[in-house]
Amino acid sequence: MFTLIQTDGAARRGRLSLKHGTVETPIFMPVGTVGSVKTLVPEDLHTLGAQIILGNTYHLFLRPGLEVIRAYGGLHNFINWQKPILTDSGGFQIFSLGKLNKLTEEGAYFSSHIDGAKFCLTPELAVEIQETLGSDIHMVLDECTPYPVDVETARSSMNRSMRWAARCRAARKDQNLCQFGIVQGGMYEQLRTLSAINLADIGFEGYAIGGLSVGEPKEDMARITEACCAVLPTDRPRYLMGVGTPLDLLEGVSRGIDMFDCVMPTRNGRNGTLFTSQGRINIKNQKYRLDQTPLDPQCGCYTCKTFTRGYLRHLYLAGEITALRLFSLHNVTYYVQLMDQVRHTIETRTFASLLSHHKDLWDQT
Amino acid sequence: MFTLIQTDGAARRGRLSLKHGTVETPIFMPVGTVGSVKTLVPEDLHTLGAQIILGNTYHLFLRPGLEVIRAYGGLHNFINWQKPILTDSGGFQIFSLGKLNKLTEEGAYFSSHIDGAKFCLTPELAVEIQETLGSDIHMVLDECTPYPVDVETARSSMNRSMRWAARCRAARKDQNLCQFGIVQGGMYEQLRTLSAINLADIGFEGYAIGGLSVGEPKEDMARITEACCAVLPTDRPRYLMGVGTPLDLLEGVSRGIDMFDCVMPTRNGRNGTLFTSQGRINIKNQKYRLDQTPLDPQCGCYTCKTFTRGYLRHLYLAGEITALRLFSLHNVTYYVQLMDQVRHTIETRTFASLLSHHKDLWDQT
Repeated sequence: MFTLIQTDGAARRGRLSLKHGTVETPIFMPVGTVGSVKTLVPEDLHTLGAQIILGNTYHLFLRPGLEVIRAYGGLHNFINWQKPILTDSGGFQIFSLGKLNKLTEEGAYFSSHIDGAKFCLTPELAVEIQETLGSDIHMVLDECTPYPVDVETARSSMNRSMRWAARCRAARKDQNLCQFGIVQGGMYEQLRTLSAINLADIGFEGYAIGGLSVGEPKEDMARITEACCAVLPTDRPRYLMGVGTPLDLLEGVSRGIDMFDCVMPTRNGRNGTLFTSQGRINIKNQKYRLDQTPLDPQCGCYTCKTFTRGYLRHLYLAGEITALRLFSLHNVTYYVQLMDQVRHTIETRTFASLLSHHKDLWDQT
Repeated sequence: MFTLIQTDGAARRGRLSLKHGTVETPIFMPVGTVGSVKTLVPEDLHTLGAQIILGNTYHLFLRPGLEVIRAYGGLHNFINWQKPILTDSGGFQIFSLGKLNKLTEEGAYFSSHIDGAKFCLTPELAVEIQETLGSDIHMVLDECTPYPVDVETARSSMNRSMRWAARCRAARKDQNLCQFGIVQGGMYEQLRTLSAINLADIGFEGYAIGGLSVGEPKEDMARITEACCAVLPTDRPRYLMGVGTPLDLLEGVSRGIDMFDCVMPTRNGRNGTLFTSQGRINIKNQKYRLDQTPLDPQCGCYTCKTFTRGYLRHLYLAGEITALRLFSLHNVTYYVQLMDQVRHTIETRTFASLLSHHKDLWDQT
């Protein structure tokens, strides 16, 4: 289901063929946590060119719950998005929302952040939930290694994740589904290499790198990404989970990553921080009070075509919900169009100059 | 600037010619308090057929302030809405937001709800602000008579409003602007009649009925509306301020009202209460959990064309901002389309049957 079309250095231009359509890579996937990319509707996502979105298994399992999803015949129908969806396994949320009660070889015992109800997420349940959601790409359940952590803890955590990965692979009812393994091993290259080899031995349709963008220095992210990409099969897509800033994406691409997801464009948008062709903008700044130019003169999104910085600043300071949507719309558009440029420059083998331009741009703002 | 096209009983089908375009009446005007109809953008308003929106002088005077509005050359450019805008005088917000410090013949001394800064809103300042905003229809500054109130208090309050109305008329710099007087006088028909005659003597381009929908019984609203319409000039538009439910609008039309504004469709939308062709819906209700039908099968808005009740309920319960927008979009569409029907039935002299249908519908839900 993955075709490698072109390379430019380590950067890869590819294509994913999925149940609900094809996805051109490298790709950025907007995050639709509870079955909705926050503040945006499918029409917005179609207009701005999103090819695939992410859904969160943890959130959707708790609310609306599998009974509702089953009644609708899957997540696509429920949310009325007929393009591809990737779902995570739910593990990351259990760890990051602080609702983990006990971790055993069987799985992760946790309490719902909504009503405190108790569950155990096992590798088998993670697969079952995702098969009910009917997503195009499923992720295995992994243990999220904390950061920082000593090498022995990282090793035993990674080894459990590998056993869970094997259980997820075995639990599939649908042998045609597209399931990704997740490389773990903290900031230890040797563990990462072992993990990647272990997953490749099991054999997945794609491979993700988990446990990065957890507070480590940028050099560690680069070093571990490189170590993983050096070992992962070249004929399968590689997904750097939860990353990151525009520059993080380009750095990832330059090391051979094909897929990214991050809440940054929507979350920063809701905080009034905008990514533009001129760098970062904090719309709250007094200097935009009388600014009658668009957020980003080079952007074609509705926000930039319709409104000026001065008005957008006013809407944001007045607490208008509309500002949150307009900023999310712009930021997601920025990310999606950045990946358009990435794909184009790989095709023309000029990716290095795009990367260099962005290194300068984001250093300064 | 007002053409009366057709009548059906007391109901009137008319047309307003304004600086930024024509408005077919009877009309509902969505409220854009701070220069934005909450959760909606101009594209939404164009799509759903809004012809004119309302801006609040009080809010816009305090934020962004006249300096910003002047730099943009008026409110239309600032918010990028090139169709007609009506602005209120600011008085109602000073009274209703509880920020009135002192009321004298000169004007209303108040503190900003944003930063506590002190101002005095005089009739002359209300005119100046609205001339800076450049709205198509200006309202005079009036004293909002409290409810309930004795006849002597209502009389002296009404009389002050009449003196303020005359000062507003005299304060106009632009003799071509479209300025509406506001009838006051509490629930006393005789005072209302005196007020309406007084305003007609001054002479305005239109007349509003203020001080209704303040907690009085529906019968009082009907009685006072009738008393005002009996006296107001038939060749000028009549605007029932801050009203109301769908049935309130039809009741108003049946007594000769041409214009309405209300926050109800947007505010109720944000509370999960929807107006539909089948009556009122509270989307939080458990019975919609697995409901795969649209909010309103007879509605053509994006919300109804795209999503089901079960999904919309999920979005609302999950606290997604998108739900607030989708519900506002639907409710404003409902109001705008209801007024389409009102105009059509007046043209075909079948308004009575529309009114009768809605009396049944809203009694039951």
